[in-house]
Amino acid sequence: MKKYVIGIDYGSDSARAVIVDAANGDEVAQAVRKYPRWTAGKYCDPHKNQYRQHPNDYTEVLEAIVGEALAEAPSGVAAHVVGLSFDTTGSTPVLIDSEGTPLALKPEFAENPNAMFVLWKDHTAIREANEINALARQWEIDFTKYEGGIYSSEWVWAKMLHILREDAAVRRAACSWVEHCDWMTAILTGNTKPETLIRSRCAAGHKAMWHPDWDGLPGEKFLTALDPLLKGYRERLFEKTETSDKAVGKLTPEWAGRLGLSTDVVVGVSAFDCHMGAVGGGIAPNVLARAIGTSTCDILISSYASIGGKVIPGICGQVDGSVVPGYAGLEAGQSGFGDIYAWFKNICGWAIEQFLPEREDLLDAIIPKLSESAAQVPVEESTVLALDWMNGRRTPDANQEVKGAIAGLTLGSSAPRVFRALVEATAFGSRAIAERFRREGVAIDGCIGLGGIARKSPFVMQTLADVMNMPIRVAATDQTCAAGAAMFAAVAAGLFERVEDAQQAMGKGFDQEYLPDPERVAVYDKIYRRYLEFGAFVEKSLS
Amino acid sequence: MKKYVIGIDYGSDSARAVIVDAANGDEVAQAVRKYPRWTAGKYCDPHKNQYRQHPNDYTEVLEAIVGEALAEAPSGVAAHVVGLSFDTTGSTPVLIDSEGTPLALKPEFAENPNAMFVLWKDHTAIREANEINALARQWEIDFTKYEGGIYSSEWVWAKMLHILREDAAVRRAACSWVEHCDWMTAILTGNTKPETLIRSRCAAGHKAMWHPDWDGLPGEKFLTALDPLLKGYRERLFEKTETSDKAVGKLTPEWAGRLGLSTDVVVGVSAFDCHMGAVGGGIAPNVLARAIGTSTCDILISSYASIGGKVIPGICGQVDGSVVPGYAGLEAGQSGFGDIYAWFKNICGWAIEQFLPEREDLLDAIIPKLSESAAQVPVEESTVLALDWMNGRRTPDANQEVKGAIAGLTLGSSAPRVFRALVEATAFGSRAIAERFRREGVAIDGCIGLGGIARKSPFVMQTLADVMNMPIRVAATDQTCAAGAAMFAAVAAGLFERVEDAQQAMGKGFDQEYLPDPERVAVYDKIYRRYLEFGAFVEKSLS
Repeated sequence: MKKYVIGIDYGSDSARAVIVDAANGDEVAQAVRKYPRWTAGKYCDPHKNQYRQHPNDYTEVLEAIVGEALAEAPSGVAAHVVGLSFDTTGSTPVLIDSEGTPLALKPEFAENPNAMFVLWKDHTAIREANEINALARQWEIDFTKYEGGIYSSEWVWAKMLHILREDAAVRRAACSWVEHCDWMTAILTGNTKPETLIRSRCAAGHKAMWHPDWDGLPGEKFLTALDPLLKGYRERLFEKTETSDKAVGKLTPEWAGRLGLSTDVVVGVSAFDCHMGAVGGGIAPNVLARAIGTSTCDILISSYASIGGKVIPGICGQVDGSVVPGYAGLEAGQSGFGDIYAWFKNICGWAIEQFLPEREDLLDAIIPKLSESAAQVPVEESTVLALDWMNGRRTPDANQEVKGAIAGLTLGSSAPRVFRALVEATAFGSRAIAERFRREGVAIDGCIGLGGIARKSPFVMQTLADVMNMPIRVAATDQTCAAGAAMFAAVAAGLFERVEDAQQAMGKGFDQEYLPDPERVAVYDKIYRRYLEFGAFVEKSLS
Repeated sequence: MKKYVIGIDYGSDSARAVIVDAANGDEVAQAVRKYPRWTAGKYCDPHKNQYRQHPNDYTEVLEAIVGEALAEAPSGVAAHVVGLSFDTTGSTPVLIDSEGTPLALKPEFAENPNAMFVLWKDHTAIREANEINALARQWEIDFTKYEGGIYSSEWVWAKMLHILREDAAVRRAACSWVEHCDWMTAILTGNTKPETLIRSRCAAGHKAMWHPDWDGLPGEKFLTALDPLLKGYRERLFEKTETSDKAVGKLTPEWAGRLGLSTDVVVGVSAFDCHMGAVGGGIAPNVLARAIGTSTCDILISSYASIGGKVIPGICGQVDGSVVPGYAGLEAGQSGFGDIYAWFKNICGWAIEQFLPEREDLLDAIIPKLSESAAQVPVEESTVLALDWMNGRRTPDANQEVKGAIAGLTLGSSAPRVFRALVEATAFGSRAIAERFRREGVAIDGCIGLGGIARKSPFVMQTLADVMNMPIRVAATDQTCAAGAAMFAAVAAGLFERVEDAQQAMGKGFDQEYLPDPERVAVYDKIYRRYLEFGAFVEKSLS
């Protein structure tokens, strides 16, 4: 008898459920839905970089997509679903009361953005992040050291502290906090108590400065030195975390009913999207798995033996078991990738947007057309040189103050030539990440591309292969995150012993491979040196 | 009885005749016509930067515009025209035979671009310019020193040598060369003999390394050391030059007939366009007169007393009497100005050009719309920083290898914000010119704007005033070059003793003034330092 698992992927704008045959990974149904309040623009203020999501957006959409996917699936599938796992964006935390209820679910906070989930890209806590970094530099233990040595305003402690400071009413009602990924499993299994709900190793290790070296979260002294407002939070949070091969529990009767599933369905421990996506896309030890979209998230796993107790400086984080249990999970990434192309699309389409705003079809045609023309430019004529820091730099050596640049411009620098330079710049940024890993003794034996750009842009992928001087295979699945979540669900439900076994049985492999061209490799080698030199100047003198 | 003069302005694409009342400068008629062969794209190869113009283009157009203007003027004006002067582009020379006939007028060379005028922007002689510079650096006298110390491929000796080397047939037929501006006066007055035709001080001093310090043109030894092909040219050229207040002669009967004028009409000595334009636009001692179009030509006059025997390094040239007799004429300029805006227009309009090429109306609307939006950006938010070197740098310190750049880019850098940075960059380039003059002890007591951009773009002009921290007055005339030529014609014909008298009587003054805003001045002061630092890096490391 067939067994099915459900992978649920919560993205920035929408959530997707995929129902998969656990024996072979075949997808039998899927459904996707946008968050209704978010889509209406509620609770956000882009000018302040404030991005909040209401908990009801998450639960309403969950019911809808699981219901819809089950309805689409062959009859009888629902009864044979054995496991369900989530991946979500992160760090996307919310303040909760002593019962674990997000404050926005209480009537008095129903419309208060400070009582809602603070989406990963919310940057309202820049000041708090700076304070955390300043304090960490002078503390006896550097609690940021496994998170790249630089705490980000996108991460939980900065965000929670910011809200506690800013909103007295929320502060009085708050008792603890929870990440979006952990709240999902907590409500579905019925244990939402702050002190005991199951916390994801991935989220805690990568964003909350959790590490066994210091018995979990940063010490109470550090937290209260940061701000006395944090007093007591540590003991109302957690010491233990779980890897995503483990089960959180089973569906409560209430949620089994709402989702149309049985109470036997096992709910696995969650993780962040790229980490599960890397598994879904076929990551293996010392293979760099890159989710390439508006930005990139680069995941690499390495055996404890090979990485030892070493700290890799300047990456986003390293957490044992955050991706595949038994391996150190290393995370890096570029703050801007496809977003940079979209920025230039808006420049090239500016006149259309101004004068013919109804012609969105033309705007959509810009990047394909630019790519086609840019690909025709011989590499030795590619003399425009850009820096890919239009959204700051995440890795190596996070710096949100640096900005993008374009040099080598002449009156003959046409839009496709500038676009080519931007594509090359994103590839140079990718190479800088790979070189950092290698410099620190982490071997990279292969590279795989996941996500929209990897599947849709041969020009970008070929440039990446040429600049990185590595073959790049492209995962055959469009939905690697949901596929990865389904694999974890299968492991959590006991269908496979190890994550690798689930990958083996359920993985869909690769359907494209880009090989570096030796001639272009040689040219790009030289241009990359100029990119580094240009970057060093811009970071030092123009930031 | 009224007296009239005709100013004739030969631009890159067309020529214009203006008939002016010599008593007050009132325009009574004008006519403009494009060069027919040039407009058809003949004899040019933009890919090779080869731009040639046929002598018949000049003469045919001359007859047409003078005839048309006279026909448009009140009856009887033709009989009262007393003088006529030309300004032309330059250096735009042609090889001539021993009679002074441009070789293209001989049947065997009628279609040979090497036998035609080599337009100022032709860059085929880069190698020859480099050789001239190399030889000048080691010669006992630096013949380039009054031309900014760097000889350009746009100038006569490089161009003539290039053709002599490249085309054996032309070489065998050639005896000497003549600038476009001097050929016009030579044919109209009937003295075309190479050794005796009247040569313009402006053209010879600024482009042919002519200077009294070394009795005229560079010595025979220098020229033959450059290339033995130049042997004998010096003695078939000239020792003397004339300033443009002087007469060359009177119209020959033939040309009087062709133009519909009397043989009493005095033809004045020619000059280059910006030099006469500066006079037409109201230049005065130590006032920087800037013709602002696709590029800029900046002219300043300074008394011999104040400038002494000093050489101003890094400008384009300094020639006694090249603008107003009795004053040193100093020339500088930016290689790219409006051309840079046009480049960005093409980027912003790229999608329209690709998908809706028939909508040229929209392309034309881009720069006005960008200007309108860019002007709204508060100066303290203007954090994009650009270098205005997309067409190299002419002044200070000519360097055609440097390229443009844009830094400080974020995902929020909209097209108007980038455009604003480009406008600021062209203004920083302008300021660098003014600062060079001042550093060398040349006072700048005022600034006037001439030409298309000065009259049409308040946003650009206000930014210039703010960045340069100087009030800028805009000449009230659209056609300052032709107006200046008319003033010189009036002086050459004896109606005024001095050029200043003609300016006084015939000038049309200023109709706009842009005053610097102290707040923006302070902000731009700081950004200008960053512009210099950015430029120093780009010139050193990315060129």
